[in-house]
Amino acid sequence: MSELQELMNQINEFTRERDWDQFHSPENLAKSIAIEAGELLECYQWSSEAKPKAVEEELADVLNYCLQMAAKLGLDPVEIVRKKMQKNAEKYPVDKSKGRSTKYDQL
Amino acid sequence: MSELQELMNQINEFTRERDWDQFHSPENLAKSIAIEAGELLECYQWSSEAKPKAVEEELADVLNYCLQMAAKLGLDPVEIVRKKMQKNAEKYPVDKSKGRSTKYDQL
Amino acid sequence: MSELQELMNQINEFTRERDWDQFHSPENLAKSIAIEAGELLECYQWSSEAKPKAVEEELADVLNYCLQMAAKLGLDPVEIVRKKMQKNAEKYPVDKSKGRSTKYDQL
Amino acid sequence: MSELQELMNQINEFTRERDWDQFHSPENLAKSIAIEAGELLECYQWSSEAKPKAVEEELADVLNYCLQMAAKLGLDPVEIVRKKMQKNAEKYPVDKSKGRSTKYDQL
Repeated sequence: MSELQELMNQINEFTRERDWDQFHSPENLAKSIAIEAGELLECYQWSSEAKPKAVEEELADVLNYCLQMAAKLGLDPVEIVRKKMQKNAEKYPVDKSKGRSTKYDQL
Repeated sequence: MSELQELMNQINEFTRERDWDQFHSPENLAKSIAIEAGELLECYQWSSEAKPKAVEEELADVLNYCLQMAAKLGLDPVEIVRKKMQKNAEKYPVDKSKGRSTKYDQL
Repeated sequence: MSELQELMNQINEFTRERDWDQFHSPENLAKSIAIEAGELLECYQWSSEAKPKAVEEELADVLNYCLQMAAKLGLDPVEIVRKKMQKNAEKYPVDKSKGRSTKYDQL
Repeated sequence: MSELQELMNQINEFTRERDWDQFHSPENLAKSIAIEAGELLECYQWSSEAKPKAVEEELADVLNYCLQMAAKLGLDPVEIVRKKMQKNAEKYPVDKSKGRSTKYDQL
């Protein structure tokens, strides 16, 4: 079993023990991801420097909910990122997007 | 090499080819995670039902930026989620939090 | 009638004409505010400079949903901001917080 | 002077007294709006019911930063919402969008 799969099992066990699955609808997980993303952003609210420990913990919370959402929807997190990258590679061809942060519809 | 590590290498290569590393400061990645989390949430804006394809793609975008941020900060994504879960286990002991969505400071 | 009250009436009329009130639960409006805030943030994703027209429109969308949420909950937007500022004035006394972006619990 | 203008003056005075204007770049205000929108959403994280007092305060924080951002950019908040509504009225004609939450590009 891969390390990631093992982690997802641990998360699942954490939730099961607390009987929290009832709260973890895809919609509530999407809200949770946005909420934790806001807390991660708060580390950088007034400065581009942030406390490493706080960043690490908030990033972990976002990741945790993302993995829960993938599991809930029966998606393989590695697989969906890989597929989306292929799509992005078409939207952002190397020759057009090199060194530019311009959005694809304005390239 | 684990499947996750392989994916992170692919993401890194994608960014390197496009010379995008210059845009990917931790602060900008934190903003990007919040922006993509908003797009994921948009799938559920008016309903608890969402289009599976859109959800899959937006979730992939959030995950992708999270992995980039971890790499940029030299953090192991699996390790930080595991560590944060240990902390959460103390904040939310099974006996106090079972079946309750109450926040830890109100348990 | 104040200019703000007039605007809130116009927003209400806009929603009523389209029979959209059914979608505008407080929860859905809270999601909408977060979604639009993400779009506003996107203007600054890779740079501290942004296109003025885009910023103006995204800020307007956030404000619009905030006013809708206030109306839906029977709250006076001016009154609640004023009240919260009084609370903030206690959390952030001038002598302690002058020139510092430190959060109140770390002052 | 309108009630809203008076409020914006009070907010400005609050910031000036604390010498916080240095932190309030448009970009930082956009981050702050997203952060506070996340806190407002947190009121509804696990349920469509929320504590009225918490909602009122978080909504006030979002509004406060929106008004600061408008002031910073020299924008009249009422005017920009009105203008954006006119644009929305074209994107969402009454006959096509009545009773439907469908996004304009899918109408």
